[in-house]
Amino acid sequence: MKQSLPLSTVHINDSFWNRYTALIPNKVIPYQWEILNDRIPDAPPSCCLKNFRIAAGEETGERKGTVFQDSDAAKWLEAVAYSLAGKPDPQLEKTADDVIDLIGRAQEADGYLNTYFSLKYPGEKWKNLTEGHELYCAGHFIEAAAAYYETTGKKAFLAIVCRLADLICKTFGPAKDQIHGYPGHPEIELALVKLYRISGNRSYLDTAKYFVEERGQEPNYFIEEMKRPGFRRIFPEFSAYDPAYSQSHLPVRQQDTAEGHAVRAVYLYCAMADLAEIYSDKELLERCVILWNNIVQKRMFVTGSIGSSGFWERFTVDYDLPNDSNYSETCASIGLALFGLRMARITGDGSYIDTVERALYNTIRAGISLEGDRYFYVNPLEVWPENCIKHSSRSHVKPVRQKWFDCACCPTNEARTLTSLGQYIYFKNDNGLFINLFIQNETSFDLNGNSVNLSLTTDYPRTGKIRIAIKAREISFSLHIRIPGFADDFSAALNGKHINVEKQKGYITIDHIWDDDEVMVQFSLKPRLIYANPLVRQNCGKIALARGPEIYCLEETDNGGNLSALSLDPQSPLEEDWRPDLFGGTMVIKTRGKKLAQSKNPESFFEKNPPKPETAELSAVPYGLWGNRGAGEMLVWIRGM
Amino acid sequence: MKQSLPLSTVHINDSFWNRYTALIPNKVIPYQWEILNDRIPDAPPSCCLKNFRIAAGEETGERKGTVFQDSDAAKWLEAVAYSLAGKPDPQLEKTADDVIDLIGRAQEADGYLNTYFSLKYPGEKWKNLTEGHELYCAGHFIEAAAAYYETTGKKAFLAIVCRLADLICKTFGPAKDQIHGYPGHPEIELALVKLYRISGNRSYLDTAKYFVEERGQEPNYFIEEMKRPGFRRIFPEFSAYDPAYSQSHLPVRQQDTAEGHAVRAVYLYCAMADLAEIYSDKELLERCVILWNNIVQKRMFVTGSIGSSGFWERFTVDYDLPNDSNYSETCASIGLALFGLRMARITGDGSYIDTVERALYNTIRAGISLEGDRYFYVNPLEVWPENCIKHSSRSHVKPVRQKWFDCACCPTNEARTLTSLGQYIYFKNDNGLFINLFIQNETSFDLNGNSVNLSLTTDYPRTGKIRIAIKAREISFSLHIRIPGFADDFSAALNGKHINVEKQKGYITIDHIWDDDEVMVQFSLKPRLIYANPLVRQNCGKIALARGPEIYCLEETDNGGNLSALSLDPQSPLEEDWRPDLFGGTMVIKTRGKKLAQSKNPESFFEKNPPKPETAELSAVPYGLWGNRGAGEMLVWIRGM
Repeated sequence: MKQSLPLSTVHINDSFWNRYTALIPNKVIPYQWEILNDRIPDAPPSCCLKNFRIAAGEETGERKGTVFQDSDAAKWLEAVAYSLAGKPDPQLEKTADDVIDLIGRAQEADGYLNTYFSLKYPGEKWKNLTEGHELYCAGHFIEAAAAYYETTGKKAFLAIVCRLADLICKTFGPAKDQIHGYPGHPEIELALVKLYRISGNRSYLDTAKYFVEERGQEPNYFIEEMKRPGFRRIFPEFSAYDPAYSQSHLPVRQQDTAEGHAVRAVYLYCAMADLAEIYSDKELLERCVILWNNIVQKRMFVTGSIGSSGFWERFTVDYDLPNDSNYSETCASIGLALFGLRMARITGDGSYIDTVERALYNTIRAGISLEGDRYFYVNPLEVWPENCIKHSSRSHVKPVRQKWFDCACCPTNEARTLTSLGQYIYFKNDNGLFINLFIQNETSFDLNGNSVNLSLTTDYPRTGKIRIAIKAREISFSLHIRIPGFADDFSAALNGKHINVEKQKGYITIDHIWDDDEVMVQFSLKPRLIYANPLVRQNCGKIALARGPEIYCLEETDNGGNLSALSLDPQSPLEEDWRPDLFGGTMVIKTRGKKLAQSKNPESFFEKNPPKPETAELSAVPYGLWGNRGAGEMLVWIRGM
Repeated sequence: MKQSLPLSTVHINDSFWNRYTALIPNKVIPYQWEILNDRIPDAPPSCCLKNFRIAAGEETGERKGTVFQDSDAAKWLEAVAYSLAGKPDPQLEKTADDVIDLIGRAQEADGYLNTYFSLKYPGEKWKNLTEGHELYCAGHFIEAAAAYYETTGKKAFLAIVCRLADLICKTFGPAKDQIHGYPGHPEIELALVKLYRISGNRSYLDTAKYFVEERGQEPNYFIEEMKRPGFRRIFPEFSAYDPAYSQSHLPVRQQDTAEGHAVRAVYLYCAMADLAEIYSDKELLERCVILWNNIVQKRMFVTGSIGSSGFWERFTVDYDLPNDSNYSETCASIGLALFGLRMARITGDGSYIDTVERALYNTIRAGISLEGDRYFYVNPLEVWPENCIKHSSRSHVKPVRQKWFDCACCPTNEARTLTSLGQYIYFKNDNGLFINLFIQNETSFDLNGNSVNLSLTTDYPRTGKIRIAIKAREISFSLHIRIPGFADDFSAALNGKHINVEKQKGYITIDHIWDDDEVMVQFSLKPRLIYANPLVRQNCGKIALARGPEIYCLEETDNGGNLSALSLDPQSPLEEDWRPDLFGGTMVIKTRGKKLAQSKNPESFFEKNPPKPETAELSAVPYGLWGNRGAGEMLVWIRGM
């Protein structure tokens, strides 16, 4: 079994990612703390911490915010935990300890923990699993507590969530006196697996498995739940409930396509992968492969995002990938990365990391501003700010990052992801080490009782040169280095001498007795074209630009308005232009194409004087950086000529 | 002042329109009668007539259907009235009389008439003008009664609506004891003008004017109304109300752009045009021109439809014309045609009729199946049936016409429009006659005491040959014949001799002393290309096909699947193929282009083997006829090469 290296042992210092990771302790975590305390003007009030204080009986007032508001504090604490692993900060740790204590005081005597139901509807606990999000919030509490325990060693939070988990394990299950239900929003499942791995308490694993296996059994739990007398609907838009929304349309072992709400789907699939690994359940793993392939081949945007429909934030059908009305939630890309990480770890297939990297370098990165205090929830591939108006089919698309959201799942998810980048870089097993991502860092790990120090040096993705320096005492192990799918022309050298290595399952493998050695891997990162499958109706004849793991886009700032009028000449050379001044240093791609001349005719269509294509220069920047220079048009898929 | 000729004097017998108009008395009206009586299996139950019986105290049960369900009966009666004008049918007239009697019995003693409020919320009358639709329904009752009086001469229905209108005039107005409000959904305004024209009762006109002028004054009536204690919301989606939705964001005389719900907008503009005409109000007319131009130049689809956003069924911004997620409600095109008809009549400018004709021959025609019993509510310009799934951003788009709708405004509106086509054909004033549309018919009219018989013979739009035979007794008048905007090359002949005529304000004018004369007008109807303004982001580089007043589209039946993969070569000749077997005879346009070959790669995007364009034949049919051969893809705007 492979495992990620513990976060506290992976010290990232990377020219590319520093501009985000350095923000987290200094800017993002303090900013989000202010938000959770309702101290940022003009941002939707969170009330998140206030709700806990009311539940703890320490403040009066009405519990406010979404039904799942508690989870914002949980994800913030998870981000804090990871951040403390990278950069100790006693004052921050004290603040976190205080929040954890507060959460403990807000917990009920039997372990129940949820301010929405405790305060507003105490008689309705566990009675609206469809919409209530109690188990979802519990999952985030557990993930946060697990992270906090792993990085600080402190057990107080763990004790709180174990009481909660114990209550859940007692409440849900196959026995007659248990509820035969499962959460409307998956999350508790993967969290219970984490808690099982930390605590060894088998009942957590059993309940995770129960939740996964029970989902979609007939009669559908949610449909039946809604029929019960006294059922109180929380979200009016679900009066016509479609079980596919919560992946409960079929038992998970019969599902072939990724359906419904995209975040729910990938969180569920994470748990399925975890269970497949722990139980060596080949059937369940095969199901994960089928669902993964359906997403990645047919239902994922080139930017590594998912969720084609703004309404219900959901998957739709194969090849339906609209650029300007999609949802592509930041959280969904995070879930996709977590799912891919598990699949790569379980199967040892590095091609899963291609997608993880696609999500991280593009959509997840786009989710946060370079200042750290503005966020995208929805990640379109084409934006025309003028038509992103309220109360319209495009009201979910924001042309600029926002301070916060009424439903604010993404910003804290972004924070916990950026602080836990280290978990993606390495897998270790008894025979060696896998290097997945090229993020400069230093680490040390223990291999069968022997200590190994490793230093990875790179300016990736500016270049594809990766230097791996290993210090060990004559230890034999396999070093697996991922070669990205886009890199056809890799080469490798050991201590300065070229070595012949073959790429297998996405990695090259160097078997060696390691002492004081240096590996150099190199591959080309030249700009390239990506073609849309003509089955994607929205993109027929269109081309996207990419370089390394980064997808590029056109922005109005560089190319003028009306980007859709531009077309790209696939024969024209793609030139690289390193711009140290831009976004803290980035590669710009320049090429030539045409632009349809603006018509003198004001009419939206006409019969005379067809628009004339005129020569145009195109200048593209990484999608992950779009929208950092004010509102303007943005376009990923460009018409071919 | 120009007027349309009375419907009962225009006898249509037209090879193009017969396939619809002949359906109305034989199929559409009986089918809709069955619907209104809840006798069509698998169609959403209407309960419309049942509601009236309950309100009349003749049946028990719950009042069901939308808040504006009453208006379905009104529009059905209006269609019956027009149908009786064209084709007397004593049995149908008896049925209509019975319905009118029933409506009378459902009316309250003070004239109030609305089954929703009478039965369900009698204490809330006139208290939710934002959503209540009482005035909207009243408007449709009045329009129906006016039509029924005009074609049957019977006054019973008129008496009912005059009682209702009297109550409205008493209830609404500037006096202290009156409500200073106006309807959330305009319709009563144009109806009150109609009733004024029939009755001469000035208070109807005054109240119509009050409603129009009061709209948008500060403080906004709807915003204030919603704040009142006890206000009960009917539509949850309006909790964040935007006054632009109901065109109440500004006083109408300050509005420059067509905003909000498209049907509401054009119904309001109709009333504004009526008032401008009656009061010779140049400022108000100029406002109508500004709003008209904004729609037609920048916010109208090439198929003559309006409403770019599925959510809120509304206008969005200039040049935002999405093909596959638009609303383009059938009712909105009907309203646009009614607005254009008024503008042409008032200004004498035939170019307004270009748009009326565009709406009638394309979207309004598309709204009904060739069988008469299936309807489109939403009229997309691009359909991929697979992605039109429930609970998604495209759930409003139906790839096939429907039996009926929960909100069923369009089918009865379609029926009343097709039965009143005659009103669009002619305007008469003291000096002569205007011929607007080329629909074969015979008519007779009186001009300053002299009788004129006119017979218009044509197979338009198969050809552009129009023969006008006039029989009169040496009467001098001007005959104005509209030359459509697309017809550059018209010619005219009087009694076989070519005459030189100039097109002015959309018409040619022949001044003549008419006796037994024949005018021949001819223009070319060759297929042509329409280019999208590059400002329409969704259509950059795309081309549409048209011929005469008809916009064409590609259908999967003729062109195979994945229509978006096709592109059109603008240099390739456009060939006409008359197909007598198809849809009762239609012209097909054939041309050549390319189709992107289907990829062997299942992935939605890839970096090798770009899709290859292969030669393809394109075969286009009129948009108005799409979807009459089962579900399949459809596409109006085709990529250029």
